Amino acid sequence: MANQIITIGRQFGSGGRTIAKKLAERLGIKYYDKELITIAAKESGISPDIFEKVDEEAANSLLYSMVIGMYATSSRITNYGEISINDKIFRVQTEIIEKLAGKEPCVIVGRCADYILRDHPNCINVFIYSNVEERIRRAMEEYNIQSKNIKEFVLKSDKKRANYYNFYTGKKWGAISNYNICLDSGALGIDGCVNILEKLVTDRK
Amino acid sequence: MANQIITIGRQFGSGGRTIAKKLAERLGIKYYDKELITIAAKESGISPDIFEKVDEEAANSLLYSMVIGMYATSSRITNYGEISINDKIFRVQTEIIEKLAGKEPCVIVGRCADYILRDHPNCINVFIYSNVEERIRRAMEEYNIQSKNIKEFVLKSDKKRANYYNFYTGKKWGAISNYNICLDSGALGIDGCVNILEKLVTDRK
Repeated sequence: MANQIITIGRQFGSGGRTIAKKLAERLGIKYYDKELITIAAKESGISPDIFEKVDEEAANSLLYSMVIGMYATSSRITNYGEISINDKIFRVQTEIIEKLAGKEPCVIVGRCADYILRDHPNCINVFIYSNVEERIRRAMEEYNIQSKNIKEFVLKSDKKRANYYNFYTGKKWGAISNYNICLDSGALGIDGCVNILEKLVTDRK
Repeated sequence: MANQIITIGRQFGSGGRTIAKKLAERLGIKYYDKELITIAAKESGISPDIFEKVDEEAANSLLYSMVIGMYATSSRITNYGEISINDKIFRVQTEIIEKLAGKEPCVIVGRCADYILRDHPNCINVFIYSNVEERIRRAMEEYNIQSKNIKEFVLKSDKKRANYYNFYTGKKWGAISNYNICLDSGALGIDGCVNILEKLVTDRK
């Protein structure tokens, strides 16, 4: 059977990243989140700084497209022709996600991995969410964000992820039909979610 | 701690009813689906035939309202005053669901139970879904529906449930924010869903 892949989409502050990491540890498999940026930057020659800024944001980056020539650290980027930097980054990440999924079992966070791997024969697509109050609490604790506009920040972060996902997949971020299991981390707890996902994966073996 | 209640919303043909029944059996607790109609009919004096027809349908039933006098089998119905038969039935079912949840642990299928029990301190809200092809297959197998318009029938059944839910709760049927866990029975299997829910409930004890 093909490598077991688990993709995890997540609302900002829902703990999706922590759940993904813990799950990968328990299953003894690789975990990719921000790591994808490092790999993609290395493979594409696009500066990691640019990657970080554009990562999971939809195409509104004329500025980035204009300055890309200044930051590209190799000539590979020119292979992508006259498309926006966002599209370039999406293509690079798509190639990398496909390659990683073909290599070994892993957990991949965000970056439309559920959509990119839609034809993969052994992929479980997960979405982690929670009510906004719980996510604010987590964001303040986990990321040390103390802004008085924290609610706006959390919701704006979701909106960016939704725009990115909807733009590149033509589907609706957070709609059940895109995922095989959706978990409310506020009600079930971080470890509760990890336990459920671990059982799901091990039961399939 | 208050009684453990599990509410299960479900797309038509997703196997939600079967999952609910199996889960209740494994946990050794009561299960209510169509049983609610029998109880509600008995307690309200509204004919079970009327109940069956109006159950989980939104208020479009002028006809039922007009004929209710002919079918009511007791005078209790007059307590509800000049409201539609759908509203009467929703109120009766609300009272019964609240009473059942206060009495003992149970699994309740559909009928906006997640919303009705929104202030219950120990309630897990579940939604079961699947892709439409899988649901058509199940509907043909489980309910022996062989119509050539089966897809239309499945989607129309969902629409009725959605209208009912949205009308009485002001929320969107099948949107993750209403539930604590959403499971794709097509990908995870009926027993796979039961296993996950059983683990979720037993881990909380």
